[in-house]
Amino acid sequence: MEGLDDKLILNVGGMRHETYISTVRAFPGTRLYKLTEPPPPGSPAAQGPPVREFFFDRNPELFSYVLGYYRTRQLHCPNDVCRDVLEEELAYWGLAEAPLAPCCWLKLSGRETRTQDFLSWEACENANLDERLLLNPMEGQGLRNAWKPWLWVLLDQPQSSLGAKCLSLISTLFAVCALVIFFQETEVQLDYFSANFTPMGHGVGVGGSQQQQQQQQNNGLVYRRAPHLLYLELLCSLWFGTELFARAISCPDKVRFLCSPLNLADIFCLFPVLVELVVGDKAERQPRLSLTLGAIRSLYVLKLVRLLGFLEKSLALRVLVHTLHSSWKEVCAFLLIWVAEILFFGSLFLYGELLGMSAPGQSELHFGDIFTCLWWTVITLTTVGYGDVYPLSAMGQLTAAVTATVGMCTGVLLVPVLLVRFQRYYAVALARQKLRPSGIL
Amino acid sequence: MEGLDDKLILNVGGMRHETYISTVRAFPGTRLYKLTEPPPPGSPAAQGPPVREFFFDRNPELFSYVLGYYRTRQLHCPNDVCRDVLEEELAYWGLAEAPLAPCCWLKLSGRETRTQDFLSWEACENANLDERLLLNPMEGQGLRNAWKPWLWVLLDQPQSSLGAKCLSLISTLFAVCALVIFFQETEVQLDYFSANFTPMGHGVGVGGSQQQQQQQQNNGLVYRRAPHLLYLELLCSLWFGTELFARAISCPDKVRFLCSPLNLADIFCLFPVLVELVVGDKAERQPRLSLTLGAIRSLYVLKLVRLLGFLEKSLALRVLVHTLHSSWKEVCAFLLIWVAEILFFGSLFLYGELLGMSAPGQSELHFGDIFTCLWWTVITLTTVGYGDVYPLSAMGQLTAAVTATVGMCTGVLLVPVLLVRFQRYYAVALARQKLRPSGIL
Amino acid sequence: MEGLDDKLILNVGGMRHETYISTVRAFPGTRLYKLTEPPPPGSPAAQGPPVREFFFDRNPELFSYVLGYYRTRQLHCPNDVCRDVLEEELAYWGLAEAPLAPCCWLKLSGRETRTQDFLSWEACENANLDERLLLNPMEGQGLRNAWKPWLWVLLDQPQSSLGAKCLSLISTLFAVCALVIFFQETEVQLDYFSANFTPMGHGVGVGGSQQQQQQQQNNGLVYRRAPHLLYLELLCSLWFGTELFARAISCPDKVRFLCSPLNLADIFCLFPVLVELVVGDKAERQPRLSLTLGAIRSLYVLKLVRLLGFLEKSLALRVLVHTLHSSWKEVCAFLLIWVAEILFFGSLFLYGELLGMSAPGQSELHFGDIFTCLWWTVITLTTVGYGDVYPLSAMGQLTAAVTATVGMCTGVLLVPVLLVRFQRYYAVALARQKLRPSGIL
Amino acid sequence: MEGLDDKLILNVGGMRHETYISTVRAFPGTRLYKLTEPPPPGSPAAQGPPVREFFFDRNPELFSYVLGYYRTRQLHCPNDVCRDVLEEELAYWGLAEAPLAPCCWLKLSGRETRTQDFLSWEACENANLDERLLLNPMEGQGLRNAWKPWLWVLLDQPQSSLGAKCLSLISTLFAVCALVIFFQETEVQLDYFSANFTPMGHGVGVGGSQQQQQQQQNNGLVYRRAPHLLYLELLCSLWFGTELFARAISCPDKVRFLCSPLNLADIFCLFPVLVELVVGDKAERQPRLSLTLGAIRSLYVLKLVRLLGFLEKSLALRVLVHTLHSSWKEVCAFLLIWVAEILFFGSLFLYGELLGMSAPGQSELHFGDIFTCLWWTVITLTTVGYGDVYPLSAMGQLTAAVTATVGMCTGVLLVPVLLVRFQRYYAVALARQKLRPSGIL
Repeated sequence: MEGLDDKLILNVGGMRHETYISTVRAFPGTRLYKLTEPPPPGSPAAQGPPVREFFFDRNPELFSYVLGYYRTRQLHCPNDVCRDVLEEELAYWGLAEAPLAPCCWLKLSGRETRTQDFLSWEACENANLDERLLLNPMEGQGLRNAWKPWLWVLLDQPQSSLGAKCLSLISTLFAVCALVIFFQETEVQLDYFSANFTPMGHGVGVGGSQQQQQQQQNNGLVYRRAPHLLYLELLCSLWFGTELFARAISCPDKVRFLCSPLNLADIFCLFPVLVELVVGDKAERQPRLSLTLGAIRSLYVLKLVRLLGFLEKSLALRVLVHTLHSSWKEVCAFLLIWVAEILFFGSLFLYGELLGMSAPGQSELHFGDIFTCLWWTVITLTTVGYGDVYPLSAMGQLTAAVTATVGMCTGVLLVPVLLVRFQRYYAVALARQKLRPSGIL
Repeated sequence: MEGLDDKLILNVGGMRHETYISTVRAFPGTRLYKLTEPPPPGSPAAQGPPVREFFFDRNPELFSYVLGYYRTRQLHCPNDVCRDVLEEELAYWGLAEAPLAPCCWLKLSGRETRTQDFLSWEACENANLDERLLLNPMEGQGLRNAWKPWLWVLLDQPQSSLGAKCLSLISTLFAVCALVIFFQETEVQLDYFSANFTPMGHGVGVGGSQQQQQQQQNNGLVYRRAPHLLYLELLCSLWFGTELFARAISCPDKVRFLCSPLNLADIFCLFPVLVELVVGDKAERQPRLSLTLGAIRSLYVLKLVRLLGFLEKSLALRVLVHTLHSSWKEVCAFLLIWVAEILFFGSLFLYGELLGMSAPGQSELHFGDIFTCLWWTVITLTTVGYGDVYPLSAMGQLTAAVTATVGMCTGVLLVPVLLVRFQRYYAVALARQKLRPSGIL
Repeated sequence: MEGLDDKLILNVGGMRHETYISTVRAFPGTRLYKLTEPPPPGSPAAQGPPVREFFFDRNPELFSYVLGYYRTRQLHCPNDVCRDVLEEELAYWGLAEAPLAPCCWLKLSGRETRTQDFLSWEACENANLDERLLLNPMEGQGLRNAWKPWLWVLLDQPQSSLGAKCLSLISTLFAVCALVIFFQETEVQLDYFSANFTPMGHGVGVGGSQQQQQQQQNNGLVYRRAPHLLYLELLCSLWFGTELFARAISCPDKVRFLCSPLNLADIFCLFPVLVELVVGDKAERQPRLSLTLGAIRSLYVLKLVRLLGFLEKSLALRVLVHTLHSSWKEVCAFLLIWVAEILFFGSLFLYGELLGMSAPGQSELHFGDIFTCLWWTVITLTTVGYGDVYPLSAMGQLTAAVTATVGMCTGVLLVPVLLVRFQRYYAVALARQKLRPSGIL
Repeated sequence: MEGLDDKLILNVGGMRHETYISTVRAFPGTRLYKLTEPPPPGSPAAQGPPVREFFFDRNPELFSYVLGYYRTRQLHCPNDVCRDVLEEELAYWGLAEAPLAPCCWLKLSGRETRTQDFLSWEACENANLDERLLLNPMEGQGLRNAWKPWLWVLLDQPQSSLGAKCLSLISTLFAVCALVIFFQETEVQLDYFSANFTPMGHGVGVGGSQQQQQQQQNNGLVYRRAPHLLYLELLCSLWFGTELFARAISCPDKVRFLCSPLNLADIFCLFPVLVELVVGDKAERQPRLSLTLGAIRSLYVLKLVRLLGFLEKSLALRVLVHTLHSSWKEVCAFLLIWVAEILFFGSLFLYGELLGMSAPGQSELHFGDIFTCLWWTVITLTTVGYGDVYPLSAMGQLTAAVTATVGMCTGVLLVPVLLVRFQRYYAVALARQKLRPSGIL
């Protein structure tokens, strides 16, 4: 055992650590080892020769972990250390290569992951904010552009001012009006198509072609939509078009504007009424065109989603959208697995039913092509189960049981992936919301 | 490199921190910098000139982070610091503007969020407790009001005393009795309406109007509900009315009393039997009135929810209710998205089916208006899938597959939002439950 | 401002804290205040009069928080403090009444909750372990009881020894055998009951009573189950009975043995074959008795659950069961809410359909009593949706939409409650599993 | 009370702890107690007799917890200590048997569990990496084996190089092609089997055997699949076989290669076309063989899952797979419970319906064997609910209600088990991803 005179005093930032010289000699080449290498005959300190004291202007808390590494050969770190601080200290003491004990790995990574999440969320939020903060720096650019940010804020942020609220309310009223017109029109179309359905697609009437022609002509008159509805819809479309145009020219970032699905829906919404005006009453003779226009018109519903703007302050929803955005890889993978499940179980179901139908006492086959099987698979995997197609043989029922169980579990598997991400992003979003106004950030 | 005589000793609350003067000069204008600004010729400390010592009566642990900022230009903070403590220390040392390192942002916000949750939950719980603690302070207000809190506690808290338990039991028995009467009556009404259904709504009989009139008169006699059931229900209603009246006048906060949905249901419950008494046997000739009264009567079921009072101590349920309350924005947003999904997929389904029906070999259209499509969408999105309406064409089936998948995922998306909030509130609710009795709060 | 000579040195456990006397005088009556009360003329310390030093043999880290309370009037606490340690220190320094800052409340409660969870889980696990550890202490009680624990372990723990594994395997084989016999018998019974179904319950045949009597007699012969099946089932029952008897007499805790649902199922399983032996072939003439016996026989399936014994080491499942046990209040509340939902929406559906049926073009009522409505509600709330009952009118469809949405959400609401508890118990269960073998506990 | 002269100074690693001798005498036999045992007359320290100082070269922070144990008889530990560090310190101070306070148990276990998770995940990832890192060490083994790892990486990792990407793309195209052929063929088979279905399984035609024979022969010609499809499929199979062979011989670990389900599927995929070539046109006369070959062909779909290789970098998915792998016990237990639920509720449903059918006004039995009941149970537990089988009697409906509720809850119970594991593994996977490139590990 060593004597007391081999004691070494290391004054790190005012905290005196004492240890034996033999302890420090555990790792040659490090800064502490070098202290003991040449026996310092004329040390600057005024103490006697047996006890030697050195001063370092470093973090005293972390140094105690460094010294613990010399004592126990295991490098640990405190819970609240940040990674670059630790690495800088280790580099200073010549221990950059020292392996961290496994029990401390998570201490470092947890913090770093959170910082990364923080920056990701910060970028996402700033992208939204940038447009709003554009107002001030652009003031100096002359009169011509001054109204742009003003218009953008007026149109895009329903909560920014009283005028924006009114504008948003008017837009909502127009959207509701367009929806009502749309639903009115579906009634007319449904009546028309259910009346003369057979002649349209496959004229397999029993020779009554003359009568049908006449009926179609009559119905062509029936289908003529009420003119006031068309003019009302035109009015709505004018408003939507004006609003969209105003938003488009005042938008600071045209590319992001065009990539937004809601804006794309707005653009497509304008087509039906334009086409109908151009084509005129010929549309009513081309039922397919008319139906396609109707399908596009159903995008009017998406205008209702803008009502969410009144609730936009909800942090949880914005974090949810951000989570889905940043999990696009997982969402794609789940979609791929979903499609593979549909194809696989659909094929199994087809052959299971065919193999099982040879048992006596079974009724007829109830599907004629593989697409009906795939349709059945979707409806079973999602546990909807209409009952229009269902297995009749034992082997098909076995397939169906496995399919239903797998479908039930696939939905459950999605929960952890989304949840873990959501928790992380929500924590940083809350942090950002709290800290930003106080100026700490 | 600097000499040892430039060392500075900072005695902060008894802990001696030592550093170089050059380190401290990193940030001009701060309190530490000022120490070195005028070379102090006559320092109050008795030490020699090379080492100067200053004493500050401040937190020594946090000061080591402050000094770390001078050393590494990065401001970190310990894991367990509270935000106002940190800000006070930084302000004292003249570093109020110093930016906190990103890795430490979450340390501060996590604590603060939890404190805010704590206060929100505290307010929620106190609102419930206030009424109960009203007892003592009101004692001095004279005899006239002394019975009010006593009555309120007796009626509102089934677990407070033996009398309250008995009263609650009696109320439950009356509720069960009212329910039994209600179900008895539905039988009578069902028999009546299934017997003479056609004449009531749309008299499209084949000319048998005379016979129907007679049948209706006969059935009018049949429908006459048993008088003892009416009297029994009147008795129940009397009890409910008395109880409601007693609760209303003894309630300390009338506004909150009226806003509670359970109390509103209690009020509405009283109407049917009153109306029936007033209208007399004319009700039986007006089937719509009778049916509406029956629909209101189904509120009797909500009285059963009062049975939860016996379990009211369950912390998890109260936290769940509080979570839903405080997530009203998210719940509204989900409802809005839900409605938009229904409208959007309903329209798509309509046009998908219409477009797809032109393929040969298809049967008739199975819906006549858009409301059937919306109905189908709800049933598919919730994965109920009755099978009364289902797509027959390939395009409709494609729409249905997308709808079912979206519906399955919408439910899953609700989980993270609720869960994260519930976890936070549950943690603070547990803390409050533990700490309150011990007097630390 | 105060002079340096008012400095006070507090040596707490070796760490020297220095502060001003004025700081310490913030809270009169405390131990620190008393130090400054009488100016101590002859202090035991050898220092000069301006600086006075006191020694306390207490925790130095916590004292820095105590001193922080004097400095900032806010009492904080470190992250890793245990509550009784903190309270003891505060009491020593005369600050038992000091209010903890809100930001530190959760630090204390979190730890305490976890300790409580730990003890709850410990008790649950020890209850299971006690029976297993009974072996050693009972050895000294003589020969008569020595075999009891041996037998218990042999029968109850399939993984304890090779013999126990074999015994468990044999039991499983017998259970599978009993199940096969059971399923064989259902075939016979089904054939019998589908053959002569009408005469059994309600003999509303069109005068063909003679023929039916004859048919019944013929079928009575048909129903006679194969004798070898009965004897085989008797053999299985003998084995089950012997095993149950051996488990019952060797069980250390008879009450818990009887309360276990699996053991109750075992007892009930013995009845059917006994009754059938006693009644003899009279059972075949009393179809209701025979069916009831069959229903009881379905308890054989529960014997398969004993197969879980081979997997019993799974910690997660034991924690899941413990979570459900300790959440019985929440489970009861959910069941109550579930029943209330069924009754409420069932009534609404009934009146919604009746009110809506007055619209023209509707078909017949498809339900004849309220129980069909309740049945529909269950099937809709659980999103099963068979399609045997579904709304036909718009008002009924509206009710159905609300019902389905509510049902979808009710399941989701159960997740957070269970999850939060499961997380807590799982954490402590993992801790216990890790720490027990190492002797730290 | 003791005097000051009994003070003991313990200099641990430079930090001076002071305490009374009486405090240290609390636990005889420990290292600190021994210090006070023989009154040391000639201590090495130069201080006066009343104060004795000892130096220990140990961790000073942990020693303050050791000293706290002497003071309060409760052993606590800091939040960030690692378990072996604590145990080493306790052993040094002679306190290896000291019981840790309950409030500190979780501090230790949490860290240890995470370390264990870390190593488990590390092993899982290294198993994947080993094959990839084989490249370099095998270079020296001569020319014969040098191409193996190169080929393996080329085939197994689509993202490793441009060539690998092209190869993977070609494979995907072949897979899509094989799928298209497969779906084409199902059409042909369906037409064939729906055309002459009756003669195949059970020739219960009304004497029309001659006609059927003829029809079958005709159809035998009809079924002859188009030769170009067969040759195209043969081409695909050749590519798949070549690829599989190349992967097999270049695979570093043959056993793991054979155990992978995707590789097994690849092997089975080769059989159908081979068998068809060997059997020739005899297959078309043996419908069962043809159907079995078709069922095997549905494994082509699994080749699509290889598309996930393009997304393989997704950490969350790999963690999800690892979670499911390491939870095989829980998954098995859930499957067992699932099967037990199906059997139990199936039996209950059978007897419930039979018992309930004796009520008047009921229709016919709609199931003829117990397998239909089990089928119904699966469809109800998974909340699919086709509606082909559903209860008609009140008792059967009660059983169905319980079954549906239990089924809804079973899925929910799976969430916590998976989620807790996933969270743990995801945390360590993130840590590993962050730390590995920086060389800290």
